[in-house]
Amino acid sequence: MSLGELAGQLDAELVGDASCSITAVATLQSAGPGQISFLANSRYRCYLASTEASAVILRAEDRDTYLGNALVSSNPYLTYARAATVLSPAARSVTGIHPSAVIEATATIDPSAAIAANCYIAADASIEPGVQIGPGCVIGKGVCIAADSRLAANISIADGVEIGQRVLIHPGVVIGSDGFGFASDQGQWFKVPQLGSVIIGDDVEIGANTTIDRGALENTVIEEGVKLDNQLQIAHNVHIGAHTAIAGATAIAGSTTIGKRCQIGGAVGIVGHLTVADDVHITAMSLVTGNIKQSGVYSSGTPLAGNREWRKNAARFGQLDSMARRLKALEIQLKKK
Amino acid sequence: MSLGELAGQLDAELVGDASCSITAVATLQSAGPGQISFLANSRYRCYLASTEASAVILRAEDRDTYLGNALVSSNPYLTYARAATVLSPAARSVTGIHPSAVIEATATIDPSAAIAANCYIAADASIEPGVQIGPGCVIGKGVCIAADSRLAANISIADGVEIGQRVLIHPGVVIGSDGFGFASDQGQWFKVPQLGSVIIGDDVEIGANTTIDRGALENTVIEEGVKLDNQLQIAHNVHIGAHTAIAGATAIAGSTTIGKRCQIGGAVGIVGHLTVADDVHITAMSLVTGNIKQSGVYSSGTPLAGNREWRKNAARFGQLDSMARRLKALEIQLKKK
Amino acid sequence: MSLGELAGQLDAELVGDASCSITAVATLQSAGPGQISFLANSRYRCYLASTEASAVILRAEDRDTYLGNALVSSNPYLTYARAATVLSPAARSVTGIHPSAVIEATATIDPSAAIAANCYIAADASIEPGVQIGPGCVIGKGVCIAADSRLAANISIADGVEIGQRVLIHPGVVIGSDGFGFASDQGQWFKVPQLGSVIIGDDVEIGANTTIDRGALENTVIEEGVKLDNQLQIAHNVHIGAHTAIAGATAIAGSTTIGKRCQIGGAVGIVGHLTVADDVHITAMSLVTGNIKQSGVYSSGTPLAGNREWRKNAARFGQLDSMARRLKALEIQLKKK
Repeated sequence: MSLGELAGQLDAELVGDASCSITAVATLQSAGPGQISFLANSRYRCYLASTEASAVILRAEDRDTYLGNALVSSNPYLTYARAATVLSPAARSVTGIHPSAVIEATATIDPSAAIAANCYIAADASIEPGVQIGPGCVIGKGVCIAADSRLAANISIADGVEIGQRVLIHPGVVIGSDGFGFASDQGQWFKVPQLGSVIIGDDVEIGANTTIDRGALENTVIEEGVKLDNQLQIAHNVHIGAHTAIAGATAIAGSTTIGKRCQIGGAVGIVGHLTVADDVHITAMSLVTGNIKQSGVYSSGTPLAGNREWRKNAARFGQLDSMARRLKALEIQLKKK
Repeated sequence: MSLGELAGQLDAELVGDASCSITAVATLQSAGPGQISFLANSRYRCYLASTEASAVILRAEDRDTYLGNALVSSNPYLTYARAATVLSPAARSVTGIHPSAVIEATATIDPSAAIAANCYIAADASIEPGVQIGPGCVIGKGVCIAADSRLAANISIADGVEIGQRVLIHPGVVIGSDGFGFASDQGQWFKVPQLGSVIIGDDVEIGANTTIDRGALENTVIEEGVKLDNQLQIAHNVHIGAHTAIAGATAIAGSTTIGKRCQIGGAVGIVGHLTVADDVHITAMSLVTGNIKQSGVYSSGTPLAGNREWRKNAARFGQLDSMARRLKALEIQLKKK
Repeated sequence: MSLGELAGQLDAELVGDASCSITAVATLQSAGPGQISFLANSRYRCYLASTEASAVILRAEDRDTYLGNALVSSNPYLTYARAATVLSPAARSVTGIHPSAVIEATATIDPSAAIAANCYIAADASIEPGVQIGPGCVIGKGVCIAADSRLAANISIADGVEIGQRVLIHPGVVIGSDGFGFASDQGQWFKVPQLGSVIIGDDVEIGANTTIDRGALENTVIEEGVKLDNQLQIAHNVHIGAHTAIAGATAIAGSTTIGKRCQIGGAVGIVGHLTVADDVHITAMSLVTGNIKQSGVYSSGTPLAGNREWRKNAARFGQLDSMARRLKALEIQLKKK
């Protein structure tokens, strides 16, 4: 593809040789002839002078410092992502049911869908047009997977779960497992039947080995456009608002509602029965124990330090309340003098 | 089922119309005719007046504020759980081995057990009466799964693991993988063979994608009635006492012993070679680095705050020891004056 | 095997009866006749006097306190690990492709490799001599698995991943899933194609249900001899140096580089785009938010406490900056007097 054609498809301003041939994307450091790169993060500006890329996607303010071919964009990372999508070879579209897959008689599989080797599709499941299900997946009774969704490998979808259109699910994901609900019964636990389901909206992406439990009575809900990274734990009756993104290893306890367009860092913990507003950012490994009512950036935790220094300071943490009282007493004593 | 019959089965006191027909459970907010709801948490009392449920399970003290049919119970959540169990349609009991499952010749499968599609059962495994194994499970050599246990989908049980009766295991669980044991050998790691196994007691429940490693020499042990949520990591030679419940994403390092009837919150970390007493509660995302000798509630961590405010306070954490010394010096100085 | 033969194979100094027969390893507490035990950790010295082991591996300084047969070693834990390896019965070596496995025509499987039941091997994959792939594994297009590597059960390896020699991968692992990359596009997320791959070096071990994402443009790299525990999350473009060991439930965000021979505790979080030097130790559940330039031991967090006491101190954490300023003001005031 010529740089001119690419500029047209990406709706970006072309500076330089429109006939230059572009076949792939690459980083500034590694790009060679035929490759297009991008400058989105200023820490990589140092590589601009020496890059061998045939063209670079960059902001208007970086245009004068680069002499080669350029595509000018107000959001170079987005323009790069679009370029990579255009230039990446589309996965070969397959259709049909592999002979080793086991499909119950009352399941409905659209002829344009693909079911890979060693899958199991239970009774009354509905697999809609263009859906691709990779090897080793288990799809429960009555599950509905809407058009053009893709499931990778070894995924388990429990009975009754509903998955929207263009959802992308990575290997090892579990959706619809029982929520963790037990009633105390004389020192033992009595299981509370988990009768709700899970509803996944359109254009959701779910990372490898993430787990999403079914609701106890109502449903667990993941709204459209939500992006979930790997190893997340989403408990029963959680509700995640549209276009929220959650990084890896975060755990959200039962019945908590997360707003729209939130960005939640990795390894965050959010306890149960809370409400988090729209447009909230939470930094990595924070613990949320109360409602968050206003958008903004939130954090908890203490900074990393050398272990010896940390031990001294951490030991004082247990004296903090006493220190605060003694400080107050000194202030009063000094005022009196 | 009539409300009167249900009250009899649940051993609850009936107030109102015994002939009222009940077909399902629902929340106070969503219940309609034919549904029974419950009031266990006072935060939902506001929905009591307007609920359209045909009956409500509640405590004696809430009985006068509700005019409809009621089942009075000292533990409404437990009574609700029992009602849900009675009213939920039992999963259709299947038996037999799906033709796509691969069973080694020396494995023993009770005729009343069910082995689903694409399972693999290794040599000398023993699958006892009433066991249900879902699609895509892999059961290792010599594994014993006792009566009426249920394994969902894509579960991996390594060689020699013993699983008790009525155990419920959710998708993606791994039991019996090698513990993380290596001896240092001139800057490299030499693998320590993991020769123990895992013993799972009766009535244990294990959440999706949880991992339980086999012991190094002795066994990893999960006693009866333990409830484990999703995404837990249980290292080699951990011993968890009966009826302890552990919430999602918690990690327990090697050779730690947890007492009976403990309640451990989500995303907790417990380091290795510790002992935690019976009846200990640990709040979410705490880190346990020493033995806990007495029952009680334990915590660590810092509260969530706006990021700007948090940064200021977190920076001072590294000065805590110095602040404590300076405070002490001021007190001495003032005493002298 | 006689104790003399074992001493010869382990290159350890024999004290006592060389003809004594040894058949297995065991702990000091549980060992009986025919078993060899070890004393590596001083906390177990109390069991030395009463052990019924036929021989004990111990340090020279413990030799005089033990009257039985001994193998003297400067690193008893390593010598024990070697003894256990020698004495453990080797897993029966199988070869060949199980008839239920599905192998695409262009995949290459060495005749000395073993492919278990219900596996799927995609086009152009290359399975080299001595490789053992357990039941239910899914191997993507063009994946190369080098000689003598072993994959347990239900593992998913995505297209193009390269795995070195003698790599050991436990059940439920996912390698090569898409990295978590999205460009912001008017309040929604546009997926950034993940075009890199994952390269796993020789002699790496990967714990159950760990996930390792493919790179965005360049590769995610795990160097030789790295040991990864269960439930880890390794994001795109992470680079882990040789012989580093990482304990369970740790998460490492994108584009971070970890040095060689590091030891990273469990449930640690490391944010993205950082560099951690060689020989760094990080204690359990620490959060790393900046580069670590020098070897040493690093920590963050606060100590566990009783919940009531913890609440008082944690509440003061939000006053730390104010306390520091007030302390400074008192010091100045007192100086003036």
